[in-house]
Amino acid sequence: MERARAVLARRLPLLRWLPQYSRVAALADLVAGVTLGLTLVPQSIAYAALADLPVHYGLYSSFLGTMLYVALGTVKEVSIGPTSLMALLTLQACRGLPIEFVLLLTFLSGCVVLLMGLLRLGFLVELISPSVTSGFTSATALIIVAAQLKGLLGLSFTAESVADNVRLIVTQWPLVRRADCALAAACCTALLLLRKVKDVRVRSKRMGRVLWLLSISRNALVVLAASVLAYVTHGPDRPLFKLSGRVEPGLPPLSAPPFSATVGNTTMNFVDMVQQLGSAVIMMPIVMVLANIAIAKAFSEGGRVDATQEMVTLGLCNMAGSLVHAMPTCGAFTRSAVSHSSGVRTPAAGLYSGIITLLALIFLTKYFYFIPKACLSSVLICAVIFMVDVRTVRRLWARDRAELGVLALTFGVSLARSVELAVLAGALASLAALLRRLMRPRVHTYHVKTELGAGLRVRPAQGASYVCAELLARRVLAAAAAVAPRPLLLDCACLALLDYAAVKMLERLITKFKANEQLLIIYNVPEELVHKYEQLAGVDARALRTNSAADALAAVAPPPAALAPPPAADAESAALLQPV
Amino acid sequence: MERARAVLARRLPLLRWLPQYSRVAALADLVAGVTLGLTLVPQSIAYAALADLPVHYGLYSSFLGTMLYVALGTVKEVSIGPTSLMALLTLQACRGLPIEFVLLLTFLSGCVVLLMGLLRLGFLVELISPSVTSGFTSATALIIVAAQLKGLLGLSFTAESVADNVRLIVTQWPLVRRADCALAAACCTALLLLRKVKDVRVRSKRMGRVLWLLSISRNALVVLAASVLAYVTHGPDRPLFKLSGRVEPGLPPLSAPPFSATVGNTTMNFVDMVQQLGSAVIMMPIVMVLANIAIAKAFSEGGRVDATQEMVTLGLCNMAGSLVHAMPTCGAFTRSAVSHSSGVRTPAAGLYSGIITLLALIFLTKYFYFIPKACLSSVLICAVIFMVDVRTVRRLWARDRAELGVLALTFGVSLARSVELAVLAGALASLAALLRRLMRPRVHTYHVKTELGAGLRVRPAQGASYVCAELLARRVLAAAAAVAPRPLLLDCACLALLDYAAVKMLERLITKFKANEQLLIIYNVPEELVHKYEQLAGVDARALRTNSAADALAAVAPPPAALAPPPAADAESAALLQPV
Repeated sequence: MERARAVLARRLPLLRWLPQYSRVAALADLVAGVTLGLTLVPQSIAYAALADLPVHYGLYSSFLGTMLYVALGTVKEVSIGPTSLMALLTLQACRGLPIEFVLLLTFLSGCVVLLMGLLRLGFLVELISPSVTSGFTSATALIIVAAQLKGLLGLSFTAESVADNVRLIVTQWPLVRRADCALAAACCTALLLLRKVKDVRVRSKRMGRVLWLLSISRNALVVLAASVLAYVTHGPDRPLFKLSGRVEPGLPPLSAPPFSATVGNTTMNFVDMVQQLGSAVIMMPIVMVLANIAIAKAFSEGGRVDATQEMVTLGLCNMAGSLVHAMPTCGAFTRSAVSHSSGVRTPAAGLYSGIITLLALIFLTKYFYFIPKACLSSVLICAVIFMVDVRTVRRLWARDRAELGVLALTFGVSLARSVELAVLAGALASLAALLRRLMRPRVHTYHVKTELGAGLRVRPAQGASYVCAELLARRVLAAAAAVAPRPLLLDCACLALLDYAAVKMLERLITKFKANEQLLIIYNVPEELVHKYEQLAGVDARALRTNSAADALAAVAPPPAALAPPPAADAESAALLQPV
Repeated sequence: MERARAVLARRLPLLRWLPQYSRVAALADLVAGVTLGLTLVPQSIAYAALADLPVHYGLYSSFLGTMLYVALGTVKEVSIGPTSLMALLTLQACRGLPIEFVLLLTFLSGCVVLLMGLLRLGFLVELISPSVTSGFTSATALIIVAAQLKGLLGLSFTAESVADNVRLIVTQWPLVRRADCALAAACCTALLLLRKVKDVRVRSKRMGRVLWLLSISRNALVVLAASVLAYVTHGPDRPLFKLSGRVEPGLPPLSAPPFSATVGNTTMNFVDMVQQLGSAVIMMPIVMVLANIAIAKAFSEGGRVDATQEMVTLGLCNMAGSLVHAMPTCGAFTRSAVSHSSGVRTPAAGLYSGIITLLALIFLTKYFYFIPKACLSSVLICAVIFMVDVRTVRRLWARDRAELGVLALTFGVSLARSVELAVLAGALASLAALLRRLMRPRVHTYHVKTELGAGLRVRPAQGASYVCAELLARRVLAAAAAVAPRPLLLDCACLALLDYAAVKMLERLITKFKANEQLLIIYNVPEELVHKYEQLAGVDARALRTNSAADALAAVAPPPAALAPPPAADAESAALLQPV
């Protein structure tokens, strides 16, 4: 009974905070939720545009996940919804395909994430090193900027890659619309200024709060202002700016995820569709989980993140989302930052931002017609441009060029091919770099003075596994040859990963030292490995548990003074001093 | 000039031993070389049969490589020639294809090995763990036994796999020839008895030497006896036993490696041929290098193996071999053991065994007609049956079931698919197992008494890399929370692989401890990493170089007594005792 309750509380975190939910917390969540909603609505519209979808799909994606997370989520700052990376991956997987593919991708990604959660595969995320994350995040930002430039300039075309975008902009330069450019410039300036306005130091605390609110709701404000301007200047023949166009009003229809679709004249069944989506069905979930767990880690402030629960929740949010025509969703850093700085207390804030999205869908869609495309592009560009991670590049340039290579590889493959391939390539490169370091084991040597005269203490700096066993043995033997016939003390404190190859290596060392009549003392073995060492053929087990070189020597060959009392033992002690 | 001579001596090891070559050494090499030759001739014939090639191709493969190694080789026991593994891989790659494919495979394998040597890719061999080696060696032995059973029974068919062999033997059981079975039984019995005869203890030293010689030359003796029997019982109409048949007499023609071949009615060009050979062009060289370096390691007795030189030599031997119609060759454990126990002194022994092979080619080929197939199969089976590595399986069963899984996987894939795929699968499985251990960092904790009261010493047992940074931080924080607000001493002796993720992890730890007002002391940092630690944001660098917990504490917060002399400093020392 107790256990069932504990499991329920773990799988339904709502039960943990709801009983203590106070009026103050509720008020804080209301403020944070509404602020978040004002960011979420224009962001959703922009991300839908980025994924080349009608803008109302952004809003369809922004209420159900947000609200489900209230009951299932563990990190109060996370807000499930469309993100720039999700939109970009959707664009790469479903470009030119009907909407059914996007919905199926949402559903399947949810299923895969749920499965990963249930199979406890969250560890896969650990294989994506910070350099890889930095590389593909920066690249994503640049890809989004490149994709949105056409919006700033009032151009319309579909382009596959960054190079395509640049080429098409150059060839279509004569078609650039001045009004859109001017509006974009104004929007960007306003957004960047409003972003900074919260850092302005003012005396009055109230004034400070107003500035902060201005800064937080800048996306909504700019979209509102630009739309009003578009409405006012809207002529009977031709609008001044490129507009978003007609938006489907009202709530999305509730329907099962589509398992077939019509492309051109052919009907594709489920298997065909999955083949068409290809690797995205695997990579989208991994990137989702990566993003969500990264945010959860960042905001849980060092506390434990229940990765399994986060994955199950994310999976369910997407599976449910596909029923209301959502695109793939996950947490977003920008929104989490807004929640955080708005003083959120519990995941309940998501309820309010979800309601705001619903209200927007019901009452505001007819006004969305007037949102200028240049304005949406400005919102996107001003959001993602700060994702370009120059700091990591600078730090790695100073400290670790190999890691910088991994970052550059990920960045380059992202731009040249696709973000998914880049993550894979980066992860493999990181593994190769790790393997390379593992294959070059460092050995520390120290000269020690002992009762038996000078000796050499040798400490391998890292675990011995099959990838370095040979080289390690060679280095220890080289060190031994340099001091022969004096004793060699092998400090095993760090010899942790003792696999079969390493065991064989140690046995070869023991045999070799015996053949050379040199004393080999194996000591300072971690307690949990002592039994493994004791099984080594030919090992002298007396010193294994000792911690210092002196104790190790004393255990194997006690100094003559210690043996003085029983005179009969003298002959024996002399024998002990011989190399074993 | 000096340097040029050193390079020359390294690349032409002949120059190192020839100047000191004594008459005693020459005599020892002559005896060892002739003995080796008597093993090499029947072995070569048997291995050619195993690869489904006319038997003289075995001899073509056994003289040039053997002789080239005299000048270029570094390990005196190695004898380049056909081996069971090479024959099996050749069979798998070139089954049913004309001889041109085998010659091209020899040439290309040589090129790849040479390239690997020049690019110093010998480290790839380290990625094949002992469990993988054991798995595919055992499987190879079983595959060879299965393939040779038909020879023992006097059957003829071509089979693809072990299952195929068994199936065909069952269906063709009525065709089994009694005479061949009887001969095979006699040969096997003789071979196994003669193998043991050298271990018989006799008083006379001379008698001992005779028995040893009998044992060493058992292959040649059995082949000779069986052939004589076949010649004697050779009737005019139908031979009693299945015989090897006509053998091309004389030396092989010297010709460039074939870059086109005719299969059926179509002529294949170089590209088609390489596509047909497929992955064998990569895997054959890797297996070659693996075999040769394993032998070199085993017989160099812990000394340094010049892997690059061995690879260059092996590559040249195969490239040259393809000119005289050789199949792929490398060193063989069986031959090296014979050389070793025959008292070989320098690689010059290869010269004599090469000459014996040449003599056999020139003078003996007409008698090869009479070698019974059942006898050759017996020689092969009795050689490889001891390669089945039960000992490793038994040791791993007792100690390390995960490694046993890797071995079983390699073994299973070898039998079910191919040896090459098995090596690849095994290598990947080993890497996954290594990665799994790396992702679960162990942390040792020790309670220490200090002048400041009790504290906790925490030592991560292995390097911190991105794959385990998160978990490591979590474990350290959990340990810290258990003793808070007492100080935590982080012993970094084993934190060797400090990549960017680990650096970030340490910085997060420092920040977290400061926020919790708990004292974190980072100490015992390996000297070569101190600069990395000193660059950490917010680190207290005073304790980094100290070795013991007490020294580390004293460096950060000297005990009050030590600060007694200048009374003015009292306030400061009190401040030092506060958590940083």
